[in-house]
This record gives sequence, structure tokens and C-alpha cells, in this order.
Amino acid sequence: MAESWSFLDAFEPDFRPLVVIELAKGTKEETIQWFTDRIVDKKGNGGAQLLVKPLVTENGNENIYLVGASHLRLLLGAETVGLVKECNDNSMRTFTYSSRKTFKDFADDNHNFLTVAECQYIIKHELENLRAKDEKMIPGYPQAKLYPGKSIVRRLLTSGILVQIFPLHDREELKKLRHSWYGRVKVGYQPLDEIRCYFGETIALYFGFLEYFTFALIPMAVIGIPYYVFAWEDYDKYVMFATFNLLWSTVILEVWKRICAIMTYRWGTLLMKRQFEEPRPGFHGALGINPVTGREEPVYSSIKRQIRIYLVSLPFVCLCLYFSLYVMMIYFDLEQWALDYHEENESNFSNLMLFVPSIIYAVVIEIMNRIYRYAAEFLTSWENHRLESSYQNHLILKVLVFNFLNCFASLFYIAFVLFDMKLLRQSLATLLITSQILNQFAESLLPYWLQRRHKKRMKKHMSSLKTDTDLSLVEQVNLEKEMGTYFGTFDDYLELFLQFGYVSLFSCVYPLAAVFAVLNNITEIYSDALKMCRVYKRPFAEPTANIGVWQLAFETMSVISVVTNCILIGMSPQVNALFPDSKMDLILTVALVEHLLLAIKFIMAFVIPDKPREIQIKLAKLEFESLEALKQQ
Amino acid sequence: MAESWSFLDAFEPDFRPLVVIELAKGTKEETIQWFTDRIVDKKGNGGAQLLVKPLVTENGNENIYLVGASHLRLLLGAETVGLVKECNDNSMRTFTYSSRKTFKDFADDNHNFLTVAECQYIIKHELENLRAKDEKMIPGYPQAKLYPGKSIVRRLLTSGILVQIFPLHDREELKKLRHSWYGRVKVGYQPLDEIRCYFGETIALYFGFLEYFTFALIPMAVIGIPYYVFAWEDYDKYVMFATFNLLWSTVILEVWKRICAIMTYRWGTLLMKRQFEEPRPGFHGALGINPVTGREEPVYSSIKRQIRIYLVSLPFVCLCLYFSLYVMMIYFDLEQWALDYHEENESNFSNLMLFVPSIIYAVVIEIMNRIYRYAAEFLTSWENHRLESSYQNHLILKVLVFNFLNCFASLFYIAFVLFDMKLLRQSLATLLITSQILNQFAESLLPYWLQRRHKKRMKKHMSSLKTDTDLSLVEQVNLEKEMGTYFGTFDDYLELFLQFGYVSLFSCVYPLAAVFAVLNNITEIYSDALKMCRVYKRPFAEPTANIGVWQLAFETMSVISVVTNCILIGMSPQVNALFPDSKMDLILTVALVEHLLLAIKFIMAFVIPDKPREIQIKLAKLEFESLEALKQQ
Repeated sequence: MAESWSFLDAFEPDFRPLVVIELAKGTKEETIQWFTDRIVDKKGNGGAQLLVKPLVTENGNENIYLVGASHLRLLLGAETVGLVKECNDNSMRTFTYSSRKTFKDFADDNHNFLTVAECQYIIKHELENLRAKDEKMIPGYPQAKLYPGKSIVRRLLTSGILVQIFPLHDREELKKLRHSWYGRVKVGYQPLDEIRCYFGETIALYFGFLEYFTFALIPMAVIGIPYYVFAWEDYDKYVMFATFNLLWSTVILEVWKRICAIMTYRWGTLLMKRQFEEPRPGFHGALGINPVTGREEPVYSSIKRQIRIYLVSLPFVCLCLYFSLYVMMIYFDLEQWALDYHEENESNFSNLMLFVPSIIYAVVIEIMNRIYRYAAEFLTSWENHRLESSYQNHLILKVLVFNFLNCFASLFYIAFVLFDMKLLRQSLATLLITSQILNQFAESLLPYWLQRRHKKRMKKHMSSLKTDTDLSLVEQVNLEKEMGTYFGTFDDYLELFLQFGYVSLFSCVYPLAAVFAVLNNITEIYSDALKMCRVYKRPFAEPTANIGVWQLAFETMSVISVVTNCILIGMSPQVNALFPDSKMDLILTVALVEHLLLAIKFIMAFVIPDKPREIQIKLAKLEFESLEALKQQ
Repeated sequence: MAESWSFLDAFEPDFRPLVVIELAKGTKEETIQWFTDRIVDKKGNGGAQLLVKPLVTENGNENIYLVGASHLRLLLGAETVGLVKECNDNSMRTFTYSSRKTFKDFADDNHNFLTVAECQYIIKHELENLRAKDEKMIPGYPQAKLYPGKSIVRRLLTSGILVQIFPLHDREELKKLRHSWYGRVKVGYQPLDEIRCYFGETIALYFGFLEYFTFALIPMAVIGIPYYVFAWEDYDKYVMFATFNLLWSTVILEVWKRICAIMTYRWGTLLMKRQFEEPRPGFHGALGINPVTGREEPVYSSIKRQIRIYLVSLPFVCLCLYFSLYVMMIYFDLEQWALDYHEENESNFSNLMLFVPSIIYAVVIEIMNRIYRYAAEFLTSWENHRLESSYQNHLILKVLVFNFLNCFASLFYIAFVLFDMKLLRQSLATLLITSQILNQFAESLLPYWLQRRHKKRMKKHMSSLKTDTDLSLVEQVNLEKEMGTYFGTFDDYLELFLQFGYVSLFSCVYPLAAVFAVLNNITEIYSDALKMCRVYKRPFAEPTANIGVWQLAFETMSVISVVTNCILIGMSPQVNALFPDSKMDLILTVALVEHLLLAIKFIMAFVIPDKPREIQIKLAKLEFESLEALKQQ
């Protein structure tokens, strides 16, 4: 393997490549020189003080650069990003270089004190914080404007000079992780701490939530099975099941907050201070003064953004919702047509035809969801939000509302307009199972198959995947740079959110939904694990302390499900039979029960503490210590 | 006036008495010596480094001591308690002695940089933080045990040696404040900034809320008047009024958060860091190690407390609620009896008799509320909460639930069991007006009258109140130590909370309630102001950033009022006439509207930002600066 070592070789014989930078083909030499100079330049000169090496393959330099950093540099970087690590006395503290000796497992020669994912996160942070000094533009590209303080990497990305930055997989570590995660058939918990070490907190938290949610669904599934097996239709059993479900869903969401706090405390992210947020890459506007930082940066009037949101995005979303309802009405026409056909020509074929409209509708829904998703991304990006977090919140809101309507409108229509419980049960089953199969296919199996085909096309004669570790660095980089990019946990949470809807909204009509959800989630864990380890590029670790806006989304769903379940129970013939004389009494009773359940839900959410006592004490202890330290000053 | 100056005279000729300490009669000389020594001792020796002087009257030393502090000592104390002050560049920053020159209005000879209320708060904080070193007990009182770190003042208070500590009124300042607050008849805002300077943030925030709430009620009152004047009974007008009320109450509560943020930002408390909370004075338990501080202090098992809460307090509260409902049923019997009497012997007297049950009930309710309040205080104290804040929350919860039931149960019964709208309107009016009159009397006028009588009994021949400022210090202290103690804003907020209930819960039945509330609140501002300035001892200032749990209480009330108003409208004959065929459609429509209104409320609460953009930017700026400062280190 012919590799030309960069000029840094002399200082750092143990250069470990951590992050790959791919520049566009034909990038001017002058630009490359300036960019790499800035990366290796001293902190004092406004550089990032990292190590850079070009990757030279048999075809010569392909504009791919490997970035690493010295051990000391990484430790200093850990302090800059505010990593929280465990101390010798088992407490969690913000790492500082000066107090490094007090941290557990720290030794000057222990290069595993920081996990590889943390090192890569530090490098990404340092690269993104490489800021223009007095450059007015990127050398060689006069159209790519710079101003003092502008992130160089972001400008390079938006002007297309920088194709991508991604962290390298660690073949050895990945093999170990794969083995303990899904390599052997076993019943047990996922190795969340190892996942966190390899992929970072955001992804580990998603898998933690997926696992927790699956376990939490088991009681609902177990209770649901006899309803199916014995075809129980007594109202009191239904009421019991629905009441259990409603209270259970509140409990599991509250308990998740506690479990999440325990996990993120152990990982240190619960204590990590929020960093100041820079504008997101796509943000543009006239150059002005940021009132917060006092620095020059693009500013975009908040009123203009509000106008775009309320006069363009909102009407567009409403139009899409209307369109989705229109498609739903077509589905019901089709359904009616299939029913008529079945009645006219009863046969095995016509029996099968009964399921066709539901399946078509489920497929159409999936397609519409995906198209809408692109539109929502485009619109939210056009709204020109300054912060990534605000962009994400607006995007999630748009996508959630549409997906909710798209997935559940037909069920609401069947339940509360047609009053057809049999059709509701059948549609629910079809929608749930179809969407689960489609998702598993589109999410993991399809990309996995494409990825394998790509590998074969590379004509590397690897007899089996087991020889992966024998790949040379050049081969590894070339393989990984072509892999798909994992765009975050959004789709994974969305899938769980919709599944939660299928399980809870109509739980008293179709108790078997929880069983299917549990089965799906067990395979989902494996297919998602496969996706993370084999299909996608390694994603950068993102420290996070909770599942954010998804907690709110799940809680909202559980409130809506109280309303739907109460109405469903009120509509059941068994309950109707209890109030033979007066429909009014029936409705009033249902309304009363609904309000009581909602009140109990809110009181429970209020009474159950969000953090376990043990974590509360640890947090209080840290706060107390910092107050005492301030007093000492 | 014969006064013996303490040994500190020599250093501090301009001793300004700020806080009064009253010890029990007959306190041992040895104890007094030890206590005053500790107060004046140097910080380094574990003292408070304050100034102390005994107050000697014509009857000799009455165990009353005046506490003051040097200017420098107060500035250092301001840093300790973390006061936030305005800088020369108009930003708010935490005061530190080293950066004192950057603060607005700071000059070494300007003794008004800190307000008197702030100085008194600092002295209180320093006295409460005077901690035992190696003393095992209070000298002279072997039964009053001490352990290292125990607050001396709190032990002195619980063992009865220390009768009270209170800040002195500032006659000059008070006169000015009284003049601008309620001294002249004028239409305008209260001088909230001056109130804050004199009484501190908690009290100023209460008056701010009272004023804001009164203004916010005006639109409801204005819209309500024509309903009374023209006796509008059309359903559409009622629906409009109720809908307006429901959305309006959401808006005013959300807008209050913003106004509160603007005020507390200006006062600096929005930015003040929370201090570590010490155990409340009444807290007791076996000596153990606090897991947070690692210090020796009483510990009390959380499980024991839970048992007391759930097995004693909860059943007791339920019993009281049952008793309250029982009393209500007696009231309805009385009401029926009065009605029968009126029908049998119709006369002016019998006409008057019709109002008697309501008035008796209103009086009984007030008495029950007050008795229950003592029981709740006793129980909550017996629950042995470690923190004052947790004690307060449990107390507020207990009192709120009982008061809510006590005040509104009869109205709910009339509205939703008797379906008697005429009686509802009449009861509402009687309850509202009686409770307002009773409150104003019991809260301010009665204590004011007692206070005046006491003053007269002191046989100081003051011809009029205008000569107050001519009182000698001895006379002033003797007068003020006998004044009642203001126990915080609890009762004042509770009164507003119940008033909000009267106005919003049944607003569509009695639109005039808002008018009475506005009228009451205008006099309430004056009577509360009178109470603060003339009836009670000056209270210690308490920094606070918001109205805390009351925000939640008001929001809950506004949610409940959506439900009650929707039901009331659904029950009105006008709306019933719209659905002549089917009661079911009517109820379903009402339920749908109710859910829509609730959804709109929650969305509005979510969409309206809690802090104005301007304050958000200022807070972000401070956070950014502190992050930048950390990076520089």
C-alpha cells in the first residue's frame, strides 16, 4: 500500500485516522493547501491543531484526507466540548485537563480514556469551529464568501467543495459490538453502553427506548392474547383492558423519563452543559450583527420567517391534509367496490380481493408519507431557521401531523362515521402489518442488499464478510465513503410513534395490536442494529440527555387515545345494552369517565418524579459542591 | 434617650439599625454574650461580622438588640447571596465586589447602591447562616442541642430563646412609598419598582399580579355589563361570551408569564441563581449524614414521610372534604326551608329570609376554610418536610383542594344536580360578594383597627399619624415589635384564585361576576397596600422570579372552567331548542366543542413563548458570555 505521509509524521508516529474528509474532484490546489494549513495550524493562530494526511490510492490522490489528533489535543478538546466523565469517587464530573488525574481509568499512556466516538465527536466539533479570520472568501473560489467568524467547514459544504466528512468505522470494535449486539441468538438486553461507546448517546438512547418500549408493550400483549383466543366480547373485560392500557401508557412514558435519566447520568450527558448553537449550514441572510454574540453573521428577520410559516407552510400542510383525506375517500370507494364484487362473484379470488384495497391504501400511505417528507424538508429549509434545533422542531411538527392523519384518518372514519367495528379491526390489522413489513424492508433490507451489491461490484474478492478486518485502510475508506448516510433517528422514532398509535388509539377493539408490535420490535432491534453496523456510514456521535420532542409526541398520543378508547367503549353494543332507556345517560357516563381518566393521567404524570431519587441526590450534590466552590472563591 | 452603645461604636459612628432581634425575657447573660459575640465575630472565625447594639429603654435593657452592618460588609454580603444588579451598559449581572465599579450608580460613598430591603435580606441571610462550630449546645441551655453546621438562629428560634427577628421600617421611605402608592386618589399603575425596593420581589410580584389581573378582567367586565343591563339571554351571545372568556383566560395567564419575566429581569431575580436550601426550622430527626452535603444534620426517612402523607394526611383531607359536602347539604335543606317559609308567609321579612341561608353558608365556609387552614398547617408540619419549599407545596395543595370544594361544591351541585340556573346566579352573587366583603374586613380593616387601638393604648400622645416620623427609635421598635407578622402572600393569592374561580367557572351564567371582581380588586389594592404599610411588621424581602405554583393553580382552574362552561351552555334552554329531536346530538356537539376548546387552549399555551423575544435575547447573551469566558480560561 503506497501512502504518502503528511508532514506531521515526524511528531506523531502513531497517527490514528479518525475522520475522513472528502473534497470534490478537481478542487484547486490552493484551496486544499489553505484548508489543510488551517486544520493543522496552532490554536493560537486560529487553527484546529489537528493532524491531516492525504489518502493516496493506486489511482493517485483522490482528494480524500484523513484527520487525526494527538492524545493531548483530544484531551484538551474533551474539555472544550465539556465532556462529563466518571471520577475515581464514582461521581460524574465535567472533564478538565488540569483535574485529569482524578478521573477513573485516566493514565497518560491510556489512549482509551476517551472512546473513539468521543474522539471523533471532538474532531468534528473542532473542524466545525474552525472560523474565518480575515479571509473574505475561500481561496480559489471567489463566489464562496467568508466573513470573520464564519465556520469554514460549513461554507465549504454549502459551496460544494467539501463533499462529506464522516468518522471511520473501527473494524475490530465493530466486530465485537456486532457479536454482543446481534451476533448470537440470545434473550437479553442490548449492550447499550457498548452501543453508546461506538455510536454515541443519541443512537444508544434510541435503541434503549426501542428496547424499553418493547418490554413495556409485553404486558399489553400478554393481556391482549386471551381476548383474541377466547374471542372475549364482554364489555367489562374490554373496559378493564382499555383502562389498563390508558393508565399503563401513562406509567410507561413517565417511567421512561426516569430510566432515561439513569442512563444519561451514567453516560455523563445529563450533566453536560448546552453549547451555544451556531447557525445551521443552510441558513442565509444579509450580513448583520447578531444581538446575542455581537458578531457579524447573516441575519434573517423573524417576521419574514413567520410570514413564510403562516402564509405558505401552514396552507400547504392544510392542502396536503385535505389531499390525504381525499385519497382516503377513494380508498373507501374501492373498499365498497371490492365488497360488491365479492358479493356478486363469491370465490377464493374475490375473498382475496377484499384485502386488496387495504393493502393498496397502506402502500399509497407509505408513498405519500415519503413524498410529503421531502416537501416538508424543502419547506422547513426554505423557512430559513437560524438554529438546527428550531429547524428540527418545525420539521417534526409538520411530518407528525401529516403522518398522524395519513395513518389514522381512515381508522377514525371507520370507527366514528361508519361505526363498523369489524372493518375497523380488519383495517387496523392490515395497516399495522403492512406498514411494519414495508418499513422493515425499506429501512434495512433494501439498503443492506444495495450495499452488498455495491461491495461485490467493487470487485474486491472477499470470500466472506468475516475477512472485513483484513481490508487495507484505502479499501476501507473507499468502501465506507460510498455507504449511505444515516440521517438521524427521526424515521426510527416516527415509526415507533405510529406503532404506538396503532396499539393505543383503538386498543379496546384490537387487543392483538400489541402482540404484533412486540414481534415487530424484536425484529426491528435486529434490523436496525444491522442497518447501523453494516449499511450506513458510521454517524458522528451526538451527546443528548433525552429523547426531546418525541416524549411530548408520545404523551400527546396517549392523551388522544384516552378520548378514542372512551368513545369506542361507549359505542360498543354491550355498553349500550347497559343503558337501554337513555342514550343520554350513556354519553354522559362516557364523558365523565373520560374526564376522570384524563384527570388521573395528568395527576399521575405530575406525581411521578421525572428523575429517580438517587439521581436527584447526585445532581443536588454536584450543585451544592459548585455553590460551595463559588463561596470559597 | 439613654442608649448604651455597643463596643463597635468606635469603628462605625454611622451605625444604621436595620434588623431587630428580640430575645425572650430572662435569657441568661452568658447566652446573650455568646450570641452577640458570634454575630460580631470575624468571618474567618465563623462569625457574621455584623454590628450589634442593645436597645435600652427607660425600663432598662429589654433584651432587644439592633443589628446593622458596615457598608463594605453589606457589599460583600450582596456577593454572597448572589444579588443581580444593573451594569453601566444596562445589562444585568451578578454583583461581585471586585467588579463593583462596572455597576450602575455604584460609588464607594453611595450608601444607597443597595436598597434597605436588600441590606436587610443580606443581614437575615448572614444571621441564618451563622452556624455552630464545636458547640454541643447553646451556652446556658443544655437542652438546646447543637451540632457542627447547625444554624444557630434556627435553634434559638425553635427553643424559644429568640422570640423574633424582623427588619425595621424606614419611616421616611415608607412615607414616600405610601404617598405614591395610595396616598393620593389617582388612576394609574402602582409604583411596583418602589414597592420592590421597600418590600422585596415576592410582595411586589403579588401586587404586580393583582394589578395585571385586575386590568385583564376589565374586558370581561365590560363585555359582561350589557348582558346584565339588557338581560340578554340569546344562546349565541352566551356562547360568544363564554368562548371569549375561555380563550381570554388562557391568553392572560400566558401573557402574565411574559410580563413577569420582564419585571423580574429588571429586578435581577430572573437571573439569580437558586441558593442551596437548608432544612426548614421545624424539621427534626435523628442525627445522620446528609447525602448531598455530606454534613451531619437531622435526617428523616422519606418512607416514613410518605406513610404520614398517604395514611394520615390524605384520609384526613378526604374526611374534611366529606364534612364540607355534608355542611353543603344542610345549607340546601335550610334554603328549602326558607323558600317554604317565604311561600307560606309572604312578607318583606320572609323576602329577606330568602338570602339568610346563603349568607350563613358564606360565613360558615369562611370559618371552615380558616379552621381547616390551621389543621392543614399542623398536618403539613407534622409530615416533617425537610425543605421549606416542599412544605409550602404540600400545604398549598391541601388548602387549595379544600377551598376549591368548599367554595364551589354548592355551585356545582346547584348547576349540575338541581339544574337551577336562577338559584345558581343568586348563590354565585351572594357567595362572591359576601366572601369579598368578609375578606376585606378580616384581612385589613380588622387588623388595622386593632393596630390603631394598640397604638392608642401605648399612651403615646400622638395627635395624628403624620407625626410618626418624630417617633424615637425606642418608641418605633416597641411599636413595631407588637405589630402582627405578615405570613407571606399565600392568603392573598388564594383569595385571587377563588375569585378567578367565581369569575371563570360559571361566567356564562353570571357575566356580572367580572365586574364585582374588578371593583373588589381596586379596593383590594388599596387595602392590601394599607395592610403592608400600616398593619404588619415590615417583612423580610424574598427574591423570587415568578409566582411559582400559583401559575399552575390558575391554569388548572382555567382548564376546569372550559368543562363547566361547556356543560352550562349545553344545558341552556336556548341551545336545547336548537336540537329539538335529539338530546344525543346536543351532548355530542357540546363534547366536541369542549375538546376543541381544550385543544386550542393547550396549543395556545404551547405556541405563546413564555419570555418576550427581547428578554430571550438578553438571557442568551449572558449565557453566551459565560460560555465564552469559560473557553478563555
